[in-house]
Amino acid sequence: MKIIVLGADGYLGWPTTMDLAGKGHEVVAIDNYSRRNIAMQTSSEALISCPNLEQRVKVFKEKTGKDIQVEIGDLCNFKFLAEIVENFKPDAIVHYAEQPSAPYSMKGYDEAHFTLKNNLEVTHNVIWAILKHAPDCHLVKLGTMGEYGTPNIDMEEGWIDIEHKGRTGKFLFPRQAGSLYHTTKVLDTDLLWFYVRTYGLRVTDLMQGPVYGLSTTESDLDDRLLPNFHYDDIFGTVVNRFLVQAIAGIPLTVYGKGGQIRGYLNLRDTLQCIDLACNNPAEKGELKIYNQLTETFSVNELADKVHSASKLLGIDVKVNSIPNPRKEPEDHYYNPIYTGLIDLGLKPNYMTDEVLGKMLETILKYKGDIKDYMIFPRVSWKK
Amino acid sequence: MKIIVLGADGYLGWPTTMDLAGKGHEVVAIDNYSRRNIAMQTSSEALISCPNLEQRVKVFKEKTGKDIQVEIGDLCNFKFLAEIVENFKPDAIVHYAEQPSAPYSMKGYDEAHFTLKNNLEVTHNVIWAILKHAPDCHLVKLGTMGEYGTPNIDMEEGWIDIEHKGRTGKFLFPRQAGSLYHTTKVLDTDLLWFYVRTYGLRVTDLMQGPVYGLSTTESDLDDRLLPNFHYDDIFGTVVNRFLVQAIAGIPLTVYGKGGQIRGYLNLRDTLQCIDLACNNPAEKGELKIYNQLTETFSVNELADKVHSASKLLGIDVKVNSIPNPRKEPEDHYYNPIYTGLIDLGLKPNYMTDEVLGKMLETILKYKGDIKDYMIFPRVSWKK
Repeated sequence: MKIIVLGADGYLGWPTTMDLAGKGHEVVAIDNYSRRNIAMQTSSEALISCPNLEQRVKVFKEKTGKDIQVEIGDLCNFKFLAEIVENFKPDAIVHYAEQPSAPYSMKGYDEAHFTLKNNLEVTHNVIWAILKHAPDCHLVKLGTMGEYGTPNIDMEEGWIDIEHKGRTGKFLFPRQAGSLYHTTKVLDTDLLWFYVRTYGLRVTDLMQGPVYGLSTTESDLDDRLLPNFHYDDIFGTVVNRFLVQAIAGIPLTVYGKGGQIRGYLNLRDTLQCIDLACNNPAEKGELKIYNQLTETFSVNELADKVHSASKLLGIDVKVNSIPNPRKEPEDHYYNPIYTGLIDLGLKPNYMTDEVLGKMLETILKYKGDIKDYMIFPRVSWKK
Repeated sequence: MKIIVLGADGYLGWPTTMDLAGKGHEVVAIDNYSRRNIAMQTSSEALISCPNLEQRVKVFKEKTGKDIQVEIGDLCNFKFLAEIVENFKPDAIVHYAEQPSAPYSMKGYDEAHFTLKNNLEVTHNVIWAILKHAPDCHLVKLGTMGEYGTPNIDMEEGWIDIEHKGRTGKFLFPRQAGSLYHTTKVLDTDLLWFYVRTYGLRVTDLMQGPVYGLSTTESDLDDRLLPNFHYDDIFGTVVNRFLVQAIAGIPLTVYGKGGQIRGYLNLRDTLQCIDLACNNPAEKGELKIYNQLTETFSVNELADKVHSASKLLGIDVKVNSIPNPRKEPEDHYYNPIYTGLIDLGLKPNYMTDEVLGKMLETILKYKGDIKDYMIFPRVSWKK
């Protein structure tokens, strides 16, 4: 298959690029280093210093003998993207190319404006590049479980049948996100659904939970192939951050009461899900939506898991509740449905002591590089 | 009250500006002539040539003795808007400043990109100008009934209680629009609701149906105060277009089967609704939503009404079904609830023979300026 990965330098983009190339697909990897740039501007660099995308691709070629085509450029520039799509004629495009940090999107006007503009324009440009130059191409879009927020009803996979005053209709499941970043993903979904039903686009939208992990088949070959591992308050996801705190001897920073439940998945499962989505494309005019997670935990349960995995390695971890910088319920109903990807063949890698233990061992090698000041929240939702 | 009107040069923006100033409010009128510019580019000029905003304000002053402050500039420029809000400290902002044409938004990439970027950036800038410089200001935002599309269930006023698997939740009423323009209004609503619940903004979002009419208390004073009256396929709303066709002796262009039902209202009722919204502001952290219409008709029923009003003036009108350039159901359920504004005191001006007859008489004065080629659809939804 011919596949373009947008945002190929990202935490998930790079492992996905390697996984697809490793499976024998012809891959074009596009990025503009926006995340690296924001990480520098906000002093939120990844724990492990990663070669740039062209260098990573060279290492990957050394280790596997396989090629990946790299294109560096801004997807807000329609011409740049349209030319690549026109020339390459992809069968699928995997779209990760968004500003992905919730705290960054809540920092102030400039950051909010950039997040809204970048995320919407890129998605819109991808839609039009497909419409114009590869109308049969299947778009695999990364959404987020955060689009739903924490509703008081079960979260179906993207759609819901509503019965109202004796009549029924099928609608997008209602979305109500907790940050501007997550809200841009809601807008993406609205936009995609409009173009799908109007012009017969083929789209799979993956409502993904927070991802944890460092290890994939390819990243295990060489530390220079590791994903960007963020533990900071801007880009770090909660499990990654907790594990770094455990190694650094800093009490785990639980925001508020810690009753916030979310759905999580292992980095290896993200790769499986993308592969399953690519191999089971949406029909023309179909918007397939899956909830992409394998387990749900409260923040307190995550802290317990990190505590227990650390203890097995002889590390004593403390847990510290700090004032919640976000505006979110800390005690709420949370029941997502997530059978779609399992039905397609997803075999979950659960968050075991062993999985967390292996991550702790990798992080330990980079202990000296951990910077305490990145760990504590620097952005508040309160104005 | 101190009120800013955004998009004050528009079909509704100008009558609203006059109405609010006429009622004694202190009004700042902002526009960048984007609609006039698009009208020129697409050969879709209004029937009645209108003086520009500064000239209109001078005529208004001559006729009423009342002042309106004009600011010409692009609301995508945050600094421009923020400075006005900071200096004027409005009690309310009435936000009409969007690219309002559905066909224009469906023309091609450039038009779609402009519509998405302009509408989202302006709304986002308005939100931030209020947050930073006038946090208690009430935002009165013009949405559209088109946000809902044509669902198979009753359209509540913005919100719906969903019962699902034995649990319940309150959500935004599901939205699924029929053009990119209407979809940008869906995105606006998502964005507004995010900022309302996160930062305590005060917003009233008016889901308005297509408006018809030429006559208001102020526009009746002088023809130079008339609203921009569009009858073309780009900016013309259906009733206005039908009436011009009646005068021009062109058969009314019913798109497809003509069973498309929408909710309509008289221009005078739009003014009442804005006034009622300003006088009944949302609380902090509240998103009030009203369905702003007074009657529902199918396109065939509208054609009949124009036929009957024309007959009274001795004009014989023919009706012609043409292939539908849009992608929309032509036979569907449509039952909007619209009691909220009536409960606040709205006294509807219904679409009577007399109202249509008065419009026909005004149009007759400009019969010589009607351009046939503007009337037939020049943009198709099909790719």
